[in-house]
Amino acid sequence: MVSIKDVAKHAGISFKTVSRVVNNDPAVRQETRAKVLQSIEVLNYRPNRAARMMRNQRSGVIGFISDEVVTRPYAGELLLGAQEIANQQGRVLMVVNIEQDRRRLQQALDMLLERRIEGLVFASYFHREVEVPEEMLSVPSVLANCFSRNAGVATFLPDECQAGQDATRLLVEQGHQRIAFITLHPEIVATGLRLEGYRQALQQAGLAFDPQLVVQGECLNEAGEPSSAASAIETLMQLDHRPTAIVCGKDEFAMQVYFLLLRYGLQVGVDIAITSFDNQLLIAPNLTPGLTTMALPHLEMGRAAVRHLFSSDADRGTTLVPFPLIERESHLLNP
Amino acid sequence: MVSIKDVAKHAGISFKTVSRVVNNDPAVRQETRAKVLQSIEVLNYRPNRAARMMRNQRSGVIGFISDEVVTRPYAGELLLGAQEIANQQGRVLMVVNIEQDRRRLQQALDMLLERRIEGLVFASYFHREVEVPEEMLSVPSVLANCFSRNAGVATFLPDECQAGQDATRLLVEQGHQRIAFITLHPEIVATGLRLEGYRQALQQAGLAFDPQLVVQGECLNEAGEPSSAASAIETLMQLDHRPTAIVCGKDEFAMQVYFLLLRYGLQVGVDIAITSFDNQLLIAPNLTPGLTTMALPHLEMGRAAVRHLFSSDADRGTTLVPFPLIERESHLLNP
Repeated sequence: MVSIKDVAKHAGISFKTVSRVVNNDPAVRQETRAKVLQSIEVLNYRPNRAARMMRNQRSGVIGFISDEVVTRPYAGELLLGAQEIANQQGRVLMVVNIEQDRRRLQQALDMLLERRIEGLVFASYFHREVEVPEEMLSVPSVLANCFSRNAGVATFLPDECQAGQDATRLLVEQGHQRIAFITLHPEIVATGLRLEGYRQALQQAGLAFDPQLVVQGECLNEAGEPSSAASAIETLMQLDHRPTAIVCGKDEFAMQVYFLLLRYGLQVGVDIAITSFDNQLLIAPNLTPGLTTMALPHLEMGRAAVRHLFSSDADRGTTLVPFPLIERESHLLNP
Repeated sequence: MVSIKDVAKHAGISFKTVSRVVNNDPAVRQETRAKVLQSIEVLNYRPNRAARMMRNQRSGVIGFISDEVVTRPYAGELLLGAQEIANQQGRVLMVVNIEQDRRRLQQALDMLLERRIEGLVFASYFHREVEVPEEMLSVPSVLANCFSRNAGVATFLPDECQAGQDATRLLVEQGHQRIAFITLHPEIVATGLRLEGYRQALQQAGLAFDPQLVVQGECLNEAGEPSSAASAIETLMQLDHRPTAIVCGKDEFAMQVYFLLLRYGLQVGVDIAITSFDNQLLIAPNLTPGLTTMALPHLEMGRAAVRHLFSSDADRGTTLVPFPLIERESHLLNP
C-alpha cells in the first residue's frame, strides 16, 4: 500500500508539506500543491481517512437529514446542490431520510453524531416550521427549506413573496387587470407569503385587490388524494366578471387548469394566460403551451447551506433565496 | 460519557455479552439482548462507532452511488428502499451522486472505499447497461436498475416484459382488439422488453400483432427538450382502422395523449382506454380519469439490493422485480 512517505519521495517534497496538501491546508503554494497532487495520482495514493479521522477528529462527512427530500419529486435538487459544494470541499454527504417522525429524527441524529459529522444540513421537502433538537447544535448546523423560531440556526428559505410578486407582475405586464390566484392550502407557509407578493404586485400596478379572485385549491396530500383545482376553477367561472389570467399555486394545479378550462370552452394561451410555481420538469415543459413558472430554488438553497457550514460567516439569520423565473409561453395570449 | 462498562453494570450482564449485543451478534439470547438494549436506552449510551470501526474494521456504512437517482423525479424510492433496510440493519447510507461521468464515478468509489464501506449499491435512474470498475468488487456490491454484462455482480432489474404484458392484458380484458403502443426511445433497454411483453399479451389473447399500431414517442431528453407524443398520436389517428386503446410508454406521454386526443374529438375514458408505465405521482392521480399505470418497482429494488448485500445468498445472478399495477380509471370506458 502506498504511503504518504512514498508520495513525498516521489514529489521531492517534505512529508509535512504533503500532509498539509492532503489535509487541504490552503496555505500551501499552488505550484507545490499541483506537484503533490500529481504524485498522488501517479502513485494512486489513497489516504486512510478513517485513521486520519481518529487523529484529527475530522471525518470529512456532512450529515444531511431530510424529511423525504430525496424521495419526493419536489426537492431532490436540494441534495444535489448540497453535494456539489461538499464535493468541492472534499467532503461527502451522509444522507438520512426521516420522513416526518420525531423518533426517527432522534435516531438519525444519533447515528450521524456517532460518526463524528463535521456539520449538519437539515432539509425539508416543503417550506415549513420544524422543531430542532438541541443536540443538533453540537455541530455546525443549517436549516434549508425549513425554519425554527428559536433555535438560532442559520436558515435558507425560498423567497415566496418575491415569487408571488414576479408571477403576478408578469401577467400585469401583459395588460391583465383581472388576475386570479389559486392558492395552496391555507396552513402552508408559502400560501400567505405568495399571496402577499400577489397583493404587492397588484398595488404597484395600481390595480385593486379583489378577494373574489383569490380561491383556494386543495392541496395537502397527506391522505394520498390527488390535489384538485376543480372547485377553484368552478368558482372563478361563475363570477360575473371572469379573470383573464390566473396565477396557479403549483404546477399540478396548472396542469389541471389547462384541462378544466376546456370545459368552459377556454384555452390557455388563447383565452386565458397562466403562471405558476415549482417548475416540475415532468409537467411544465410537457404542457401546450409550455408553462411559465417560478422555479423552486432548491439547488441554490442546497449550495448555500453547505457553503455556510464551513464559512467564516457566523450569521445565524435567515437568507431568502429567490425563485428563478422560467419563461415559457403560458403567460402570453396568442404569442 | 456513558461507557459500555456502565451498561454492563446497569444490566447486570458481563461486559463481553454487552459488547456482543452492541455488535449485533445474532448468537446472543433474545432475552439477554432485550435487557441490554433497555439499559442502553436508560443510560443513553452511544457507542463510538468511529473508534469501533478502527478496532473491528466495520464501519456500519453502505455506499450508495447513483447517477441522478436522488435528484430526478423518477427513482428516489430506490434510495428510500435501500435506506429502510440499511436502518433495520443498524447501518447508514453514504450517498454519492455522480451523474453520468466516468471520472466522478472513480472519485466516488475512492471516497467510499477510503471510508471502509461494508457494501456498495450502484443504482441508475433508468434501466440501462453500465460499466463496473473493478475496484467495486473489493467490497460486497449489487447493481440496482442497471446491469453489467461481465461484472459478476448480483443485479436487481425491473421486470419490463411483465409490465408490458400486464399493461396490455388489462386492455385486452376490456375487450379491445386494436391496441396501440407508444414506445420509449428505441435505444432504451425498457423499450424492447416492454414491446416483447405487449406482443406476448396479444398472442396469448389470440390477437394479431399489427406493426402499424406500434409508434415511437420521442423520449431521450438529453437536450432538455420535452418529450412529445404528438407525432405518435398523429400517426395513429391517420390509420384507416384507429386503435380503441393505447399503451403509453410513460406517464408523461399519457398526460400529453389526454390533451392530444381532444383535438380529434376523442376523450380518454369515453372513446379511448389508456394504460401507462411509471406511476408518477405528480401526473397519474391528477389526470381525469385517473391514469391506470404500472408502477416502477424502485422501492422494492432498493430493498432487495441492500438485503442481498449481507445475506448468505451468494447468487450473483439477475433478479427481476415486478411492476405493481396501479389501477385507476383510464383503462375503462364509461365505467
